[in-house]
Amino acid sequence: MSPSGKPEIGRRRSIARSRLFAVEALEIEFSNGEQRTFERLTSNGQGAGAVMIVAMPDPDHVLLIQEYAAGIEEYALTLPKGVIDPGEDIVTAANRELREECGYGARVIEPLIELTLAPNYMTHRIHVVMATQLYEERLPGDEPEPLIVEKHAIEDIEALLTRGDFHEGRAIAALFIARDRLRERQASPDPMFW
Amino acid sequence: MSPSGKPEIGRRRSIARSRLFAVEALEIEFSNGEQRTFERLTSNGQGAGAVMIVAMPDPDHVLLIQEYAAGIEEYALTLPKGVIDPGEDIVTAANRELREECGYGARVIEPLIELTLAPNYMTHRIHVVMATQLYEERLPGDEPEPLIVEKHAIEDIEALLTRGDFHEGRAIAALFIARDRLRERQASPDPMFW
Repeated sequence: MSPSGKPEIGRRRSIARSRLFAVEALEIEFSNGEQRTFERLTSNGQGAGAVMIVAMPDPDHVLLIQEYAAGIEEYALTLPKGVIDPGEDIVTAANRELREECGYGARVIEPLIELTLAPNYMTHRIHVVMATQLYEERLPGDEPEPLIVEKHAIEDIEALLTRGDFHEGRAIAALFIARDRLRERQASPDPMFW
Repeated sequence: MSPSGKPEIGRRRSIARSRLFAVEALEIEFSNGEQRTFERLTSNGQGAGAVMIVAMPDPDHVLLIQEYAAGIEEYALTLPKGVIDPGEDIVTAANRELREECGYGARVIEPLIELTLAPNYMTHRIHVVMATQLYEERLPGDEPEPLIVEKHAIEDIEALLTRGDFHEGRAIAALFIARDRLRERQASPDPMFW
């Protein structure tokens, strides 16, 4: 069967719910007549999505944060990110998260890509942006302890991958996409960009 | 506080459970005395983890699959992947998934990296491998409809990203890592590799 015959979704049920998560069961009929029940995870009340920021204090470096990751019970290195609050747009949310997590605001925020986490069984999407022309400004966040902010050369992704604490798929994807975009830009530079 | 003072985890509670998912609440005390309750998602009974395969039918191309993604209710392009069954090792699981989803076995399977999905609130990890020296062999899988297998030049990631259906962060990360690894290898080729 071809993907042109899109599956039809029948009954939807909510089957589990917590403060952060909700699990739904979907009855799905494929175009060849096969029927399946799919479970998927939704963000409980976080309908506006999330934002991840590739923040560059200069044309060669990116800001990464070290944060306790309760899912794996270890500190992990990743990009600053967070949930878009109700009423916020992507740029506003990105600039707030950057000030809360890294102590910087950005004069320029531009879209890079929208990523999914595990689209087979999660509804989650995250908007990745690039932030440039940074200036120091801190907003109080809700972190239980201050995050450690590190500055790394964006050309050193291979070195980051060997550290052992930089393993979050979507952050790695975002960094590679930003690096390739910057390489293209350096091939035809716009002197006003930085 | 420094990450050397690792948070202490107190009480753990199971607060929601479905066929695929389980949600736990952890009481966590940080080294500065701050206390928080974290919710995290675990794979219900999928303790052996998962595997994702960068399968290369020749030195320049990679196999991608088009599969219905119930989380976003769209077909999505991604790498072949699946859960490691009880008793399987990573290589066995990768070779099984590749035969089920793409109709190929691999004579060489080597580790590339281990990725997390969202380590702040998920325990999920996936082992990414590179599969080479492929041969045609199909195993029946449990897919509701045949997957569409596409062959793409691994140097064309930028073109894939503009398609609109290639957005899964960990698959994009895996493809970039494989591409960079192959570029290094081509700089110092081993004639026996393919």
